[in-house]
Amino acid sequence: MDRTAHLDKAFYPSSVAVIGVGPITAGRFYVESLLGSGFQGKIYPVHPNGGEIEGLSIYRSISQIPGQIDYVISCIPARFVPQLISEAAAKKVKVLSLFTSGFSETGSREGRKLEAEIARRARDGNLRLIGPNCMGVYSPRSGLSFADDLPRECGGVAFVCQSGGNAIYFVRLAAERGVRFSKVISYGNACDVNESDLFEYLRDDPETDLVTAYIEGVKDGSRFRRVLKSLSAKKPVILLKGGVTTEGARTASSHTASLSGSNDIWTALVKQYGAIRVDTLNEMVDLAVTFRFLAPHVGRRVAMIGGGGGASVLATDACASNGFTLPGIPASVSAEIKGALDSEAGLILTNPIELNMFPQATQKITRSLLSMGSVDLMLANCVFGQEPWDFFDTWFDLFCDTVLKVHREIPKAIGVVLVSELNNKQPHFVTLRRRYCEAGLPVYYSMSSACRAIDRFVRYHEMRHHWTGGMP
Amino acid sequence: MDRTAHLDKAFYPSSVAVIGVGPITAGRFYVESLLGSGFQGKIYPVHPNGGEIEGLSIYRSISQIPGQIDYVISCIPARFVPQLISEAAAKKVKVLSLFTSGFSETGSREGRKLEAEIARRARDGNLRLIGPNCMGVYSPRSGLSFADDLPRECGGVAFVCQSGGNAIYFVRLAAERGVRFSKVISYGNACDVNESDLFEYLRDDPETDLVTAYIEGVKDGSRFRRVLKSLSAKKPVILLKGGVTTEGARTASSHTASLSGSNDIWTALVKQYGAIRVDTLNEMVDLAVTFRFLAPHVGRRVAMIGGGGGASVLATDACASNGFTLPGIPASVSAEIKGALDSEAGLILTNPIELNMFPQATQKITRSLLSMGSVDLMLANCVFGQEPWDFFDTWFDLFCDTVLKVHREIPKAIGVVLVSELNNKQPHFVTLRRRYCEAGLPVYYSMSSACRAIDRFVRYHEMRHHWTGGMP
Repeated sequence: MDRTAHLDKAFYPSSVAVIGVGPITAGRFYVESLLGSGFQGKIYPVHPNGGEIEGLSIYRSISQIPGQIDYVISCIPARFVPQLISEAAAKKVKVLSLFTSGFSETGSREGRKLEAEIARRARDGNLRLIGPNCMGVYSPRSGLSFADDLPRECGGVAFVCQSGGNAIYFVRLAAERGVRFSKVISYGNACDVNESDLFEYLRDDPETDLVTAYIEGVKDGSRFRRVLKSLSAKKPVILLKGGVTTEGARTASSHTASLSGSNDIWTALVKQYGAIRVDTLNEMVDLAVTFRFLAPHVGRRVAMIGGGGGASVLATDACASNGFTLPGIPASVSAEIKGALDSEAGLILTNPIELNMFPQATQKITRSLLSMGSVDLMLANCVFGQEPWDFFDTWFDLFCDTVLKVHREIPKAIGVVLVSELNNKQPHFVTLRRRYCEAGLPVYYSMSSACRAIDRFVRYHEMRHHWTGGMP
Repeated sequence: MDRTAHLDKAFYPSSVAVIGVGPITAGRFYVESLLGSGFQGKIYPVHPNGGEIEGLSIYRSISQIPGQIDYVISCIPARFVPQLISEAAAKKVKVLSLFTSGFSETGSREGRKLEAEIARRARDGNLRLIGPNCMGVYSPRSGLSFADDLPRECGGVAFVCQSGGNAIYFVRLAAERGVRFSKVISYGNACDVNESDLFEYLRDDPETDLVTAYIEGVKDGSRFRRVLKSLSAKKPVILLKGGVTTEGARTASSHTASLSGSNDIWTALVKQYGAIRVDTLNEMVDLAVTFRFLAPHVGRRVAMIGGGGGASVLATDACASNGFTLPGIPASVSAEIKGALDSEAGLILTNPIELNMFPQATQKITRSLLSMGSVDLMLANCVFGQEPWDFFDTWFDLFCDTVLKVHREIPKAIGVVLVSELNNKQPHFVTLRRRYCEAGLPVYYSMSSACRAIDRFVRYHEMRHHWTGGMP
């Protein structure tokens, strides 16, 4: 059996049926999410009472729907699901996604039995199941979504996620920093479609160039190993494993009935195939942002610009302890910069440089530093709230103008660290983040997280280079 | 010489002179900060042109001020400072703080010479210098402040900080989470008053019960060792060392002309005297919050409540990998809880528990879990933005009601993790954070940072217990 069969119908459906659209139900919100996300195909809401929702007729059962149905979303109680699957199979539905929970994750014998039963009916009916106990699919190309606030634009990042909440949270976090997605699949208990099927599909998906994943447990270890190998040979893979401690594994088992597997095996596996392992969703966002916005051949020699002496000291420590160097400023560059600072004869220019000390020459200095032959990468460090008085805040706008202007002129990597944890700085922060993201710059929320992510990105490409003997 | 002499005048001045209050100068903002922070003593602005500021007469020189001056803030250019110090000494000023920069931190021979000169004049005039190149003192008891948005209430935390920006940032970050301060001193180049003087003062300060510090370099290593020993024997000390890498040390030297010292020496020193070393300002806030709100004898056995399966799996991993355990729920407690859930006979209750699954019994469950003899500490895990639809957000309010109610009833430790990194969740987050803080609960921004901080807090008290043979 082809384990990726029919998955196209989940990502590019022409018609979707949502089962269980009573008042204040998940079904109702799925319909609203489809409408709010611009789904262009047919939407068929279903509920035994009939009626209307958002101007759409509600069908009393799936068998009464007139046309073909590509994709079904189930939001009805678990005990009605076996019957639904049989009806869907009769309607030649190809993929059914189960928001419905109450199966093996309950830990009860009944739950396990019911899950086995729906898997059997799906097999018999030549129909694929996603879930149960999941959010299903977000596929912006089709306007298919499980929340109405996810980006409508497409991008190259796929997310294979065993948790619905983590899927939604990750998409939202990453979207705020300019990441866009090809396909996101929340697949829950994985009673049929599992992580290996999805990895295999995404390996060959031309719309995906980076695969991120949150996995609690795999169903078939040796197949997963083969699929991870072939996927990571073609595309970068970033993995977050849930349930790495004994206690976490127990929690995972009551979440998605997963067998977590030993952490050592995961570590070995990830290392063997050159995937990137992260510990948190935030770290995964940092890496997605880095892969999205930095070119592969960035190096480790950093020019740092920013404001604030103490902030610069801590940022330098973060940078250096992640394996980056901060080359000194050669006399020739120093002389060139000082030409723009007529009254600063005795000045010693350092890297990092506190750019706010030189308002009259910020562009000149930034340009000169980024142009240095000894520099691969510029890190712009903006810490809101270090300044005693609010009028300093306007400096962050000038700083942004400068960085964006120099970015347009000089084709070298720039990363932006925007630290803004204080409430009253939020609106300003959001505006600046948008400006940086729209200009194609990776934005991070601390110097350490920036350097950790860029370090792993650099190491990933060094390793690829090593493996392929320099061939792309 | 008594190295803490006169420092009282910097923390509890009856009168402050601000030197250099021209238009759009730091001096002007200092005056506004004093007024905005409720300083009750006399404020004497000084500028050669005279005039008026915020209804206060501007004196043309310090010698023309009629009354006694306890504390002087200098915001004039470096070259005028030697003369100012002599005039201040003549007026019997006891402490002078120098916002003014342009001394040894410039790296120039002139700067070093000028710094030596002002130190000499201060010694000759029996006057203490704070700085140069610093923000000076924030002492809420007196309404003395270097920014107008710092809390006016006092608290038990002191911060000794070599960087002005880090001082302001740390106070703001910590204040948002309910920490209040006794004294904060930004002391810059430390040409006179240094970290050891301040540690000695704070050791004997009845208003201070926790000392936090950001230090780039110390002036006298063996004295610092002695003072740290005597301070940490009396009060917990949390240290952030700036300039721990070669590159960071170089940056520190151009920031405050500090000699950073070897990182190994710092590690050994901190370990020997039982201080707590942190790597970031955020980590220092986490610890300040923990010391502020948790009782010393908290243990490692955690009951975790929250919403979201994937979030719970990751939170459990964070908890367990920091040395906490999550005891199972005994049959008796399970039975007691199920009594409140009449239709859930087959249910298996787990720790962590997804509280949002049981809206009808959240208080009952929370109360039962926290009452368990096998539980020392409850961690409440609230991750905003994991839910697909906005109406879930109201659940966080119910969750907060529950936690606060149970906290009032049961005298056991509770920590709150509020994860809210999405823009549109900010206002809700701010409201809830305030509710938790005002109720005396420590709030953290991730489960890992919470567990890291509480782990270090527990270890600190275990070690104290060991050292003192169980005597307080």
